[in-house]
Amino acid sequence: MPAPEQMCEVVAAYFKAFDNADADAIAALFADKAQVHDPVGSDPHIGIKAIRAFYGSSVEMKPKLTQQGPTRTAGDYAAFAFTVTLVTGQRIDVIDTFKFDASGKVIEMRAFFGPLNMHGF
Amino acid sequence: MPAPEQMCEVVAAYFKAFDNADADAIAALFADKAQVHDPVGSDPHIGIKAIRAFYGSSVEMKPKLTQQGPTRTAGDYAAFAFTVTLVTGQRIDVIDTFKFDASGKVIEMRAFFGPLNMHGF
Repeated sequence: MPAPEQMCEVVAAYFKAFDNADADAIAALFADKAQVHDPVGSDPHIGIKAIRAFYGSSVEMKPKLTQQGPTRTAGDYAAFAFTVTLVTGQRIDVIDTFKFDASGKVIEMRAFFGPLNMHGF
Repeated sequence: MPAPEQMCEVVAAYFKAFDNADADAIAALFADKAQVHDPVGSDPHIGIKAIRAFYGSSVEMKPKLTQQGPTRTAGDYAAFAFTVTLVTGQRIDVIDTFKFDASGKVIEMRAFFGPLNMHGF
């Protein structure tokens, strides 16, 4: 199980990679067989190839991610709250959880947001 | 699946019940066969009787819960960030997820916090 500090660093790297619109750097945080549920309840992106493609499309929209409050860790999970602001000014409030494998890669990402969390759409 | 508004109301009722130190009101939000993982990675409290006992002990400590940012909902989940302040001044930063059953009761609660989120201990 990764140390809390290590999981917090991965979350920080995730935000930094979004700032740099660097989908390769985002994908590098995930395990080969990872699953991305974004949002929870939608069909997941399964496997690193699908995940890389998903984040490639995401960073093309040039979203600005702003973390709200500290990253929480528990067991092999990290959880963190943030706001996504699009170039259109539209805003989405999100909470993500990352589940980590023993090597410190993200094996499952779950994004929590819904219609009440989407502003200006 | 409960509507997002309905899930947000349950989260608001959870905070209000903590404000009132009312463990019965907290337990009433949960399904009979619910599980509470607090924190994630520890042995869960399973079933309404164990959950009522757990929250009974919790509210005895008179914690002050302060929500940070809006409740997020996705599928049959709600996620929300908050700070717990104890009468000793000790503080814990937490993110919880609630999974709901079809009747709108919480069937699974998961609390995310770890050593880096505990201040003054």
